[in-house]
Amino acid sequence: MKHLAAYLLLGLAGNTSPSAENIKEVLSSVGIEADTERLEKLISELEGKDIQQVRKNICGRVEHHSNSHDS
Amino acid sequence: MKHLAAYLLLGLAGNTSPSAENIKEVLSSVGIEADTERLEKLISELEGKDIQQVRKNICGRVEHHSNSHDS
Repeated sequence: MKHLAAYLLLGLAGNTSPSAENIKEVLSSVGIEADTERLEKLISELEGKDIQQVRKNICGRVEHHSNSHDS
Repeated sequence: MKHLAAYLLLGLAGNTSPSAENIKEVLSSVGIEADTERLEKLISELEGKDIQQVRKNICGRVEHHSNSHDS
C-alpha cells in the first residue's frame, strides 16, 4: 500500500512511469524504507497503466479488507 | 487529490495527524508546490480521521468522476 501511494503521488506529479528509485525517494522523504522486492513487483504490475487505474487499485484494496498484502 | 495522496502516504508512515508543513515537504519531494489554501482546508476536513477514511475519500473521488475539484 505504501509503495502504491508513492506511485500515485508521482503519477499526480506528472511522472507517468515512476522508477523504483523515484518511489524509494518519495518513501524516504516520509521516513519509510522501501521493500525492493515488492516494489519491483508493483512496478512491473503497474507499467503502462494510467493514474486512474492506480487509484482504482488503491480502492480495490480498501473494498477487500480480506486482502492483507501490504504493497 | 495530490494533497490527499501525500496525506495518505504520511499516514501510512505512521504520522496520524500530518501538518501542512509535512504535506508540503512530501509534495516538494516529487516537485509539486502545495496550494496552501486547499491544504489547510483538507487538513481541517481530515483532522481526527483515520487512514482508512482517507483512503475512502480517495476512492469516493474516483467513483464520482463529476467531481472535478482537484485537492
